[in-house]
Amino acid sequence: NRTYRIAVIAGDGIGTEVMSEGLKVLGRAAERFGFRLETQEFDFASAEYWTKHGRMLPEDWFETLSGFDAIYFGAVGWPDVVPDHISLWGSLLQFRRGFDQYVNLRPVKLLPGVPGPLRGREPGDIDFLVVRENTEGEYSSIGGKMFEGTDRETVVQETVMTRTGIDRILRFAYEQAQRRGGRLTSATKSNGISITMPYWDERVAEMGESFPEIEVDKFHIDILAAQFVLHPDWFDVVVASNLFGDILSDLGPACTGTIGVAPSANINPTGELPSLFEPVHGSAPDIAGQGIANPVGQIWAGAMMLDFLGEAQAAEAVTTAFETVLESGETMTPDLGGSARCEELGTAIAQAV
Amino acid sequence: NRTYRIAVIAGDGIGTEVMSEGLKVLGRAAERFGFRLETQEFDFASAEYWTKHGRMLPEDWFETLSGFDAIYFGAVGWPDVVPDHISLWGSLLQFRRGFDQYVNLRPVKLLPGVPGPLRGREPGDIDFLVVRENTEGEYSSIGGKMFEGTDRETVVQETVMTRTGIDRILRFAYEQAQRRGGRLTSATKSNGISITMPYWDERVAEMGESFPEIEVDKFHIDILAAQFVLHPDWFDVVVASNLFGDILSDLGPACTGTIGVAPSANINPTGELPSLFEPVHGSAPDIAGQGIANPVGQIWAGAMMLDFLGEAQAAEAVTTAFETVLESGETMTPDLGGSARCEELGTAIAQAV
Ligand SMILES: CC(C)[C@H](C(=O)O)[C@@H](O)C(=O)O
Ligand SMILES: CC(C)[C@H](C(=O)O)[C@@H](O)C(=O)O
Repeated sequence: NRTYRIAVIAGDGIGTEVMSEGLKVLGRAAERFGFRLETQEFDFASAEYWTKHGRMLPEDWFETLSGFDAIYFGAVGWPDVVPDHISLWGSLLQFRRGFDQYVNLRPVKLLPGVPGPLRGREPGDIDFLVVRENTEGEYSSIGGKMFEGTDRETVVQETVMTRTGIDRILRFAYEQAQRRGGRLTSATKSNGISITMPYWDERVAEMGESFPEIEVDKFHIDILAAQFVLHPDWFDVVVASNLFGDILSDLGPACTGTIGVAPSANINPTGELPSLFEPVHGSAPDIAGQGIANPVGQIWAGAMMLDFLGEAQAAEAVTTAFETVLESGETMTPDLGGSARCEELGTAIAQAV
Repeated sequence: NRTYRIAVIAGDGIGTEVMSEGLKVLGRAAERFGFRLETQEFDFASAEYWTKHGRMLPEDWFETLSGFDAIYFGAVGWPDVVPDHISLWGSLLQFRRGFDQYVNLRPVKLLPGVPGPLRGREPGDIDFLVVRENTEGEYSSIGGKMFEGTDRETVVQETVMTRTGIDRILRFAYEQAQRRGGRLTSATKSNGISITMPYWDERVAEMGESFPEIEVDKFHIDILAAQFVLHPDWFDVVVASNLFGDILSDLGPACTGTIGVAPSANINPTGELPSLFEPVHGSAPDIAGQGIANPVGQIWAGAMMLDFLGEAQAAEAVTTAFETVLESGETMTPDLGGSARCEELGTAIAQAV
């Protein structure tokens, strides 16, 4: 009688296709590990909803969703109908801010059966976590334009970082490093960005005093990006500001060839408001409706959700399941060189659970 | 009787070792192509100078250097003696700002004989140029700290972009694309950074009207970083803001395995103040003094300097020379798996010119 209330928002395009497979696999895990998922589906955060209502979310979205234990999210965006900046700022980014999901967590892992772009790397060689600050920093809306329309036209945008905001993401990252028994790498640029980044470094050092057993190093973002390509095996947990984390959490999965199957967890660690779990890939209008999308990102996101809900064993089982199916290479979607359909790969993974 | 006045600043560590080889190769090119390089060496911008004078540059550095046609720079930094942020902001970054070197140009090229980290890529597959804005944007010193020492502590740093600053770097980038007969890629993040980056996009579009024959695309920086790894063959000229350019111009050379031999040109295209040419690598205290540094970065930077001075043929000859020597694999420094000394590789390249 462990019961979790899950809000299901499939969104647009392949979001709806991979969501079915995600739910299939999670349902199987619930059966096997003896818990209940009480799901409720919502049609907002989609282009269809926007067409009908002229907005991405109902007015009471916050109240509607805030009672859930988690949000299981597909993909949003359909640029032919609604521009991306409207659909994203009007839904996904609302959730991240509104529910104070200040952690964005993205695993970077070389998977069996998924070809990566780097020479000489094997599954097991690359396995780390990017911990991104998800609510402040470089993503502020403070600033503006002056001398508009003239040669002196000037735009200004402020990066705002708070001790509260930095410390809570650092604490989370240090705890992850602790949990993994490993090291922490901090992304900085204090040699160039002269106010906010030295402050970030200061807080990293200060927080480190509470975690004396964790080894910490820091890299400037330019050389860190380079090291993701040259030495991805060096990393264990990487913590970064909102913008740097955004870059690193796409670059990391690119280095493992997993950008199409990587998950993203938007977490409010207090548990007072729901966290959101989504695949990194978008709605992919170009292949939507064909039933050939790869559901692994959605399923992997589901595993992160189970882990967050406290069902670590079930999470582990789901991860092992999709890794085993990928390794066997028998049921591969077209992006992995096979001819299996989205549904078939989902079913194979559910069975492996 | 084409004569160019070159200020030579070797700096610290391996800077002094690779500089000798750079000058050797340039000297040979001058002989062959019939021009004169009038060089003058300076000992400032070095840890030794700092120890003697308590500053990185003499007070009259601007007057001393501004009459030269170009500055040929080695590497600065010796952290045991002077912290990096002092040595860099006190020298290299002074030059970039003081001489209004608003273009930072970095070639990304897969070279024969230099092993890269990406699977299945051959010399010829990857050959593009990163054009970085070098004087404004995210590298501003405007901002500060409030509520110091309390839980409400907040730091703010402003990104400042001007129409003048953006337009001049875009014009340069479009012209490079024109010169290479190719395409232009703009690095943006207008889906997340909501004021400065949409303005950047606007200027890219506006400038594009003066270059109707150039095909332009834009990528958000997160996915662009990913594409550098996944599809480096897509790019021809990539233009980016100061911070994004900093990241991309380390990431690019990482993807080609050339981070140890890549050059960087800091250009003031007006020619009214000197431009500066340097290898990307630093002073490398760990191998300094052993005579085993790889001089190709310094030599490649020299080729860019010749090109800038209008000696395109000589520049081409120097580039061909080091590519040929690398391809033969006969004279390789330890970083490339050989046992040649810095001096031997320099001499081999000079002979090939
Ligand atoms: C040392 C640092 C301030 C500098 C920069 O960020 O510009 C360096 O990374 C570079 O690219 O030359
Ligand atoms: C769509 C965009 C605003 C978003 C971000 O930058 O946060 C995306 O890149 C992501 O990482 O989820």
